[in-house]
Amino acid sequence: MAKRNFILNQIKSTFSKFGFSQIETPTIENLSVLMGKYGDEGDQLLFKILNSGNFSEKLSSQDLDNGYKSLTPKISEKGLRYDLTVPFARFVVMNRNDLAMPFKRFQIQPVWRADKPQRGRYREFYQCDADVVGTNSLLCEAEIVLMLNEIFGNLKIENFSIKVNNRKILTAIAQKIGADGNEAKFCVAIDKLDKIGKTKVEDELLANGFEPQMIVDLQPIFEITGNFNEKLAKLEDWLSDIEMGRNGVAELKELGQLVKSFGLETPNLELDITLARGLSYYTGAIFEVKALGVNMGSISGGGRYDNLTGSFGMPGLSGVGISLGVDRIYDVMEELGLFPNNLGLSTQVMITNLGNETFQIALPLLTLLRANCISAEIYPDTSKLKKQFEYTNKRNIPFLIIIGTDELESGLLTIKNMNTGEQFKFDANELVAFVKSQVF
Amino acid sequence: MAKRNFILNQIKSTFSKFGFSQIETPTIENLSVLMGKYGDEGDQLLFKILNSGNFSEKLSSQDLDNGYKSLTPKISEKGLRYDLTVPFARFVVMNRNDLAMPFKRFQIQPVWRADKPQRGRYREFYQCDADVVGTNSLLCEAEIVLMLNEIFGNLKIENFSIKVNNRKILTAIAQKIGADGNEAKFCVAIDKLDKIGKTKVEDELLANGFEPQMIVDLQPIFEITGNFNEKLAKLEDWLSDIEMGRNGVAELKELGQLVKSFGLETPNLELDITLARGLSYYTGAIFEVKALGVNMGSISGGGRYDNLTGSFGMPGLSGVGISLGVDRIYDVMEELGLFPNNLGLSTQVMITNLGNETFQIALPLLTLLRANCISAEIYPDTSKLKKQFEYTNKRNIPFLIIIGTDELESGLLTIKNMNTGEQFKFDANELVAFVKSQVF
Repeated sequence: MAKRNFILNQIKSTFSKFGFSQIETPTIENLSVLMGKYGDEGDQLLFKILNSGNFSEKLSSQDLDNGYKSLTPKISEKGLRYDLTVPFARFVVMNRNDLAMPFKRFQIQPVWRADKPQRGRYREFYQCDADVVGTNSLLCEAEIVLMLNEIFGNLKIENFSIKVNNRKILTAIAQKIGADGNEAKFCVAIDKLDKIGKTKVEDELLANGFEPQMIVDLQPIFEITGNFNEKLAKLEDWLSDIEMGRNGVAELKELGQLVKSFGLETPNLELDITLARGLSYYTGAIFEVKALGVNMGSISGGGRYDNLTGSFGMPGLSGVGISLGVDRIYDVMEELGLFPNNLGLSTQVMITNLGNETFQIALPLLTLLRANCISAEIYPDTSKLKKQFEYTNKRNIPFLIIIGTDELESGLLTIKNMNTGEQFKFDANELVAFVKSQVF
Repeated sequence: MAKRNFILNQIKSTFSKFGFSQIETPTIENLSVLMGKYGDEGDQLLFKILNSGNFSEKLSSQDLDNGYKSLTPKISEKGLRYDLTVPFARFVVMNRNDLAMPFKRFQIQPVWRADKPQRGRYREFYQCDADVVGTNSLLCEAEIVLMLNEIFGNLKIENFSIKVNNRKILTAIAQKIGADGNEAKFCVAIDKLDKIGKTKVEDELLANGFEPQMIVDLQPIFEITGNFNEKLAKLEDWLSDIEMGRNGVAELKELGQLVKSFGLETPNLELDITLARGLSYYTGAIFEVKALGVNMGSISGGGRYDNLTGSFGMPGLSGVGISLGVDRIYDVMEELGLFPNNLGLSTQVMITNLGNETFQIALPLLTLLRANCISAEIYPDTSKLKKQFEYTNKRNIPFLIIIGTDELESGLLTIKNMNTGEQFKFDANELVAFVKSQVF
């Protein structure tokens, strides 16, 4: 938790500085809100809640015979949050009369997927989303790039790449090769380039009805290389005869310029014209962040969508958002050794318990330490000093204050630095001053 | 969220100062862990999760005929966390070889109950628990009293009462009136004294097989009045012939003395010898906190238990804990108007967007403000100043920086205090200094 809170506090601090307010939505949503939003696979991966009370009262054996898919809606009306996007869309629609638009929110909550757990894939994991809805200004995309740079910079994940693309580029490429309208299939295949390589992507396209000439026409996609601006220039040239392509290039160009105007010299931006991120709802910018030098999927992803709230009866609301994979970021930081050393330290001072007669000194001292914002404890049981030593060590508590008969007589308290073994004697006020000087 | 975070941050700060470390446990537990821990009513109120995949494959029509109670375990193996205590017990048992005992943890997470929602009763609500396990030292009880005083004091809920009792007192009273072994029934009835009054409690006891003479012998319970120490003296006198009673009185007396030794002069402690808190697992101290002058159930409760982990095969582990009802505390603070005024303010400065040509000034200024830890935004769309004014007002953002053609020419930026209407002109650095002086 100390490590997770370290990550979350950095993220919250950046989101707040950029004007995003935190919201939370309920864990349990009506299945009518969730079903059909994540594809067939998503529907299967929803955790569904059994109705309360006598849920089977009206079931017949015919219902059993019809199989679990038709049985489910008869015994389950609610499910667990699957992501933060759909609940956010519902929230925006339900509160549309009260929200000041554009509306900027961030949300950090767990989501649940009834999946087979494996590395980087959990049944319960935190998502952390920031979205702006109610504007199509590219300033929002630029601020996403700024936020990602600030967050990963603050977490000391120095080596990362923000891949960016634009759905309009993907649409234009499909048009360019004469595959208008087959853009979805094209995106699904091209999205796998990283994983399965060029040849297999081409095979999949052929298998899905793309003609050999289309594959030939597609070759420039694999040949566009260089830095952000160089790639953009080549792309502009290739797609110059497609209006959608010109628009996509113009948006990417403006994004690059805005980021520069904000004063960000090294935005870690990489143009990846094969980036599609599966989700078909992106309509403009598409983002994905990868930590380099670590074997881990994307640690952040997002993009612009023009119809987030359409399925809830509120069409035409444009927005752009980013989701951070907190648990994967955790794994990356663990692997790279990026967590500060002293994160787990909750308690700074332990006071020994060598009998009730020492309480007259120990308890007011404890109150004094805490009044000075120092986390402090007394060992709860009267037991041998050795046992109290070992416990203080096991808890990694850096200071132990010893109050025994000597200390009762002299009024001077012994404090031991558990790391160096050094011991000092102080009266209570000196002791608090000493601990403060060591701890803060 | 701003208000809830205000409460949670105060609580976390106190728990940390007293040496408690934060943990979280999964939302979903096996039903085998949850069932039977909260009584029959609790079993009914558990949200149960439908098994994934083809859950009805092996069901027969006989299973349907047997009714929902026997059907449930065949189609559901998991449920949602119902409180933080049972998952904590499971956690302690699973990690018993790694935890330094005594173990002090706090946990702030939502819990779920399939109940009918009403005032102060929610289907999803935050619980916030702190427990120490592995010691039976009364220092822990005393520190609970200290923590409760600090937390409610910091939240400005000045008027509250920490009711305290001891399970040994309740057991002794049952013995005293000759109702040994009927202590559970006695506790259930006496627990309702606040709600239904003395006569109805007596009726319930009679209806449950208590004899009239027992009710007569019970009368002192209603006559013990005065402050903490006065009540304790009367109780000591009444129960002097019962060993269990002498032990309970001794524990309460020591608790009072320890709290005083810590230097807490006004501990808001009230001895309530009818306090039982329903839960039968308390074995020592029992706590309950009420906010006075507000119509709201208890906002905190807890006590000592000697067998938290017994049902998970680890008997004899003593612990004491307290649970804070965050959502009820929220309602109390709302009703008493105790939240600070400026809590909702995430953004301090809005910058106008009067066209791309102003970005050369606006965007670096935005970066400068944020680098100084000031939450700042630019209005995303180029639109009429009036609209941007209204938006800034609706968002309660206190400062608006106007950058138009005048400002582009002069290099001096106008900042408007949205509350007073005052306007000033500064260059960028002066402006940041001004905002810092106003905001921090």
